[in-house]
Amino acid sequence: MARPHQLTQLELQLSPTPPSSPSPSPATSPPPSAPGTVRPGGRTARTRAAVRDAVLAGLVEYGYPGLTVEYVAEQSGVHKTTLYRRWGGVEGLVADALDLAGEDGWTPPDTGTLRGDLHALAQEIVDTFGDPAAAAAPAAFIAAAFQSERAAEALRGFYCERFARCAPLTERAVARGEVPAATDHDSLARAVSAPLFFRLFITREPLDAADADQAADVALAAARAGVFTPPA
Amino acid sequence: MARPHQLTQLELQLSPTPPSSPSPSPATSPPPSAPGTVRPGGRTARTRAAVRDAVLAGLVEYGYPGLTVEYVAEQSGVHKTTLYRRWGGVEGLVADALDLAGEDGWTPPDTGTLRGDLHALAQEIVDTFGDPAAAAAPAAFIAAAFQSERAAEALRGFYCERFARCAPLTERAVARGEVPAATDHDSLARAVSAPLFFRLFITREPLDAADADQAADVALAAARAGVFTPPA
Repeated sequence: MARPHQLTQLELQLSPTPPSSPSPSPATSPPPSAPGTVRPGGRTARTRAAVRDAVLAGLVEYGYPGLTVEYVAEQSGVHKTTLYRRWGGVEGLVADALDLAGEDGWTPPDTGTLRGDLHALAQEIVDTFGDPAAAAAPAAFIAAAFQSERAAEALRGFYCERFARCAPLTERAVARGEVPAATDHDSLARAVSAPLFFRLFITREPLDAADADQAADVALAAARAGVFTPPA
Repeated sequence: MARPHQLTQLELQLSPTPPSSPSPSPATSPPPSAPGTVRPGGRTARTRAAVRDAVLAGLVEYGYPGLTVEYVAEQSGVHKTTLYRRWGGVEGLVADALDLAGEDGWTPPDTGTLRGDLHALAQEIVDTFGDPAAAAAPAAFIAAAFQSERAAEALRGFYCERFARCAPLTERAVARGEVPAATDHDSLARAVSAPLFFRLFITREPLDAADADQAADVALAAARAGVFTPPA
């Protein structure tokens, strides 16, 4: 299953191997150790990444209702007993895969103007969801959250952390005098994202560059008008 | 299962009986005719409503993956053979339930100002999703769209038609000189809804009156700034 290696995305964007692990993951090249004897230490991160990849593959192929610990064991080469012991079951596996997805080095665009940054941010979302291979995993996580409270919690944590990373984007805009000093960075980043996810997952409509531009312009107009500053 | 009878909602809001059918539906009071012999004409609408209610009950209780024609037959009192013949199967049943949901008399708020209308619109969404009984059906349809292309199509149709009904809201605002004449009513109504659905179904965060106010204010600021007018 082809999945791009970009890690610089606001939305869920997952690479098959973590950036710190350049060697092939056990998912594609099984470790020499027999199932159930995965050693702790250096191998832990690779095991976790292999399990994460198997969870993603299963979510994309079967959806949350069809995902089983047996499937993850088979795909990852990690023994079922180990999976149950370390992750508890399917809910724990999905939640941890999402936590791991958040451990990338993503930072928001820095184009020199707030307008440019917001347009770039919106375009990143449109680009990701325009690529079926890149879109499959985030869509599967969002779907899983309808059926699992732990997946929903993990999704909430993922996006909270992701929007927190957008603080410098607003700080730079404030420093340049583009928006009021008290502008809430979190609300601004959410405002860009919301209309695009709304089309994708609620109204189920196509998404293009014009949608990205409008989402960015809406957020910019609201920020300039002081909508994202706390009430006096 | 308690479900409110309000029909004046922007988002999916379903009553157990259609407004044109004040008599009890076959779901609560089975028709005297034997299963499989449901007659055409006057009874068709009640049969359809009973089937719709059964589909909703199943979606809310088991989700799309757990919904079966057998369950709908049992709950609605309509024979399985009839369901297969008229709806084709689960996908057709879900799509038709959603089509039927769109056949209500909903119109957008008319408070005398655009600001008032947008705030009322946003508050309707917050109120509905703050009520677990009212929220269950729309959430179940949105979830089903992840797994069924026909449900996704029906959801797209539902929202397109719903936003089209918001045209008078923008027309009144244009007539009052509150926004530019070329303001696209569809974009304006979507802009109010998107941030609320984003919190509900993507970032999985709580929703309150402050979120409604911000969503309305963002849409208003963008409309005033001319973001929803076609590019020159």
